[in-house]
Amino acid sequence: MNILITLDSNYLWPLRVMLTSMIMNNPNETFDIYLMHSRLKDEEIEDLDKFIKKNNMRLHVVEIDDHYFNDAKVCMHYPKEMYYRLLAHKFLPQELRRILYLDPDILVLNPLRSFYETDLTNFMYAACCHKKFAIRFVNQLRFSAHKIYNYYNSGVLLINLDLVREHVNEHEIFAFVDKYHNRLILPDQDVLNALYSGKIKEMDEIYYNYDARLYLYYKTLTYGKCDMDYVINNTVFLHFCGKKKPWNKKYMSPFLSLYKHYEKCAKLLSE
Amino acid sequence: MNILITLDSNYLWPLRVMLTSMIMNNPNETFDIYLMHSRLKDEEIEDLDKFIKKNNMRLHVVEIDDHYFNDAKVCMHYPKEMYYRLLAHKFLPQELRRILYLDPDILVLNPLRSFYETDLTNFMYAACCHKKFAIRFVNQLRFSAHKIYNYYNSGVLLINLDLVREHVNEHEIFAFVDKYHNRLILPDQDVLNALYSGKIKEMDEIYYNYDARLYLYYKTLTYGKCDMDYVINNTVFLHFCGKKKPWNKKYMSPFLSLYKHYEKCAKLLSE
Repeated sequence: MNILITLDSNYLWPLRVMLTSMIMNNPNETFDIYLMHSRLKDEEIEDLDKFIKKNNMRLHVVEIDDHYFNDAKVCMHYPKEMYYRLLAHKFLPQELRRILYLDPDILVLNPLRSFYETDLTNFMYAACCHKKFAIRFVNQLRFSAHKIYNYYNSGVLLINLDLVREHVNEHEIFAFVDKYHNRLILPDQDVLNALYSGKIKEMDEIYYNYDARLYLYYKTLTYGKCDMDYVINNTVFLHFCGKKKPWNKKYMSPFLSLYKHYEKCAKLLSE
Repeated sequence: MNILITLDSNYLWPLRVMLTSMIMNNPNETFDIYLMHSRLKDEEIEDLDKFIKKNNMRLHVVEIDDHYFNDAKVCMHYPKEMYYRLLAHKFLPQELRRILYLDPDILVLNPLRSFYETDLTNFMYAACCHKKFAIRFVNQLRFSAHKIYNYYNSGVLLINLDLVREHVNEHEIFAFVDKYHNRLILPDQDVLNALYSGKIKEMDEIYYNYDARLYLYYKTLTYGKCDMDYVINNTVFLHFCGKKKPWNKKYMSPFLSLYKHYEKCAKLLSE
């Protein structure tokens, strides 16, 4: 399976934790990791390559010219590299037809093949909506000319490269970013939603983009069905959304002990 | 290493989870599991034996005549089998010189060899005190004739079988249980403390008997040092003390997600 990651140096450690959880819970799969970046150092890439090879994955490094998105708004905790997923098709091998973008602040808790093979006929993407926050974001955005059908989280994004190559227009993205520069809150995600929301297949967030801050919300919403046992055995992508991250001090959520466990496993797989 | 377990049917599943965590975090060790019981069914033992063999451990079944401790107080959630650890030496092979008793409501998070090899010269046992509760228990007990030096938790109990064979007197235990029958709260633990407290080597509870209910207490006590990261990387025995257990519905603690993770691993190792 093809996995797309885009990051800067700050996320190299969380990336290892994410990859560790992915291979531990998908032991019979082979993964091709496409790393898009513009600012990683050679030794950082070498280290990562060693880790990835040692654990039976393949790394493909895609270095990006620094001029892309230079004018886009970059918030402190949203590195410039996070835009790359929108134009990934321009830099990836032409023969690739599908790729799964994953944020590095994710744990993969269960097999992901069935999600990876989602039928994307007529859809450019598959992604999830964080319903609890969706309305707020849609209201905050209101890009007059752009109809937003749903507000999707772009942290788990299955990409139909064939269709994206046909329809995603680089100049349209640049124009949009230029125009709404001051109104972008989560820049890449806002662009995705404003321009392509109608072409995204909605997947169930409880399985494919579980917001780790919302344990009690999901549990209540499902009348108790989605308890911790259910999450551990069914959720594929557990996403540590928001500014507070489990690899920083002072983070607290019911998933902290689980995250620390995978951090420990990542250390062992790095030895 | 020799591991002693004593349980009834209700704890067969938690036992698998405990053993799973133990072998996953001690991959280069070999374990001889001594199971003392009187009420398990043949098919339960066969199932357990299959699981233990499959995962490269050895099971030794020690069946106990039903008359032992028949008159001792048995609380709903403390099965009669929990007394056995006090008289284990009477039923174990004479050549065994040391054994580690572990409750089944434990996760083994790190290598246990250094604990197992604790110097026990002049000590019958090594165990930990749950300091937060110790004073309360000592006060509740007050067995007039018996000096209690410290109140130890008997869930993790390293046993010096040589010394125990010399000093533990079966009749003394029966007489004690008979006399204080109505004042025993945690029966086996009370006996251990009342009779042998002075011969127990105290170990650090943060490493060797971390009470899963006390995350914030330990963290505060250590001025923040003992945070989740520290526990995952240093604590050997994480003990789910108390009536509420992580395999039951409605349990909640910062370690629930970790426990559910090991439950899932135990399922995989059972397949």
